[in-house]
Amino acid sequence: MKILEDRIRRDGRVRDGGVLKVDGFLNHQMDIALFSDMGKEFYRIFGDRRVNKILTIEASGIGIACLTAQQFGCPVVFAKKTQTKNISGEVYTTSVRSFTHDRVYDIIVSKEFLTPADRVLIIDDFLANGCALMGLVRLVRDAGAQLVGAGIAVEKAFQPGGELIRGMGVEVASLARIKAMDPVRGVEFC
Amino acid sequence: MKILEDRIRRDGRVRDGGVLKVDGFLNHQMDIALFSDMGKEFYRIFGDRRVNKILTIEASGIGIACLTAQQFGCPVVFAKKTQTKNISGEVYTTSVRSFTHDRVYDIIVSKEFLTPADRVLIIDDFLANGCALMGLVRLVRDAGAQLVGAGIAVEKAFQPGGELIRGMGVEVASLARIKAMDPVRGVEFC
Repeated sequence: MKILEDRIRRDGRVRDGGVLKVDGFLNHQMDIALFSDMGKEFYRIFGDRRVNKILTIEASGIGIACLTAQQFGCPVVFAKKTQTKNISGEVYTTSVRSFTHDRVYDIIVSKEFLTPADRVLIIDDFLANGCALMGLVRLVRDAGAQLVGAGIAVEKAFQPGGELIRGMGVEVASLARIKAMDPVRGVEFC
Repeated sequence: MKILEDRIRRDGRVRDGGVLKVDGFLNHQMDIALFSDMGKEFYRIFGDRRVNKILTIEASGIGIACLTAQQFGCPVVFAKKTQTKNISGEVYTTSVRSFTHDRVYDIIVSKEFLTPADRVLIIDDFLANGCALMGLVRLVRDAGAQLVGAGIAVEKAFQPGGELIRGMGVEVASLARIKAMDPVRGVEFC
């Protein structure tokens, strides 16, 4: 998606250690007009697939998910991160490893809001190692819901997540796929 | 706001201990069409006040903030919760007590995204004890930004937060103000 790639080139900053800072428009300050355009693009890709629910994960996926859901005319469910195992049986839960924060946390979704009747599009801001996305895929499968696909804003295609998850048979559509990046040379897209 | 009150009456559940469950449409599964109507109502109230930034706090404020920002044509900044003090000087930070989770956490906003040039509308889903909202007010004031007001979805008017924050001179507009609630009798609005 050209406008997102252009925006990353203009306002993104590459830091040492494979960090891409896009907090001016994507995951701290959020450009809602851009998110709306991204939602339209996800609808162009997945709009004929009878999606009735968008699933995302707190916190930075929520904004993009909401503007995408507006296109699909459906609700958003966001998985919550928790460090305490919920054993009440009222939720689907799975463990996710965070490389960024070097820890493992559980994510949960209430069983009430993810059911076999649902046709789910997962939306998230980043795909790198794929741990969060894989956790969301597990929640959808545990619920017996139909997974339509995953819409990602920025995929670091030089990290293994995208290949892993596509290898599981999940249709992943990333609006900007980064082939390589470097603090000096900047970002190169696929 | 009648449609929000009606929705709370229909789909909200009052639990013991002053807990109102609205996770079917507000803070776990999110009704985007309802959020858009709420955004229009906030615009009706604050639309002539030259708001150029919406400030909220992760995670459940983000959806309402995004749909409200769409009405105002401005970006959203969400304060991040963290348990590790950031001492780099690049952020505004303040401590917030959570009664729900019985702990204290820090919230941070990058100095880059909150400046004296900003006219800020705070948006959040709940106002009860007012700790989170007061933290956001402090961040706005620390930044030297102009605080236009605060738009809240659901205010528990029987708890002290609303009175405290209005007493600080902040204009608070709550779309549903709960006077009393009880698992048997349900919700009574102001």
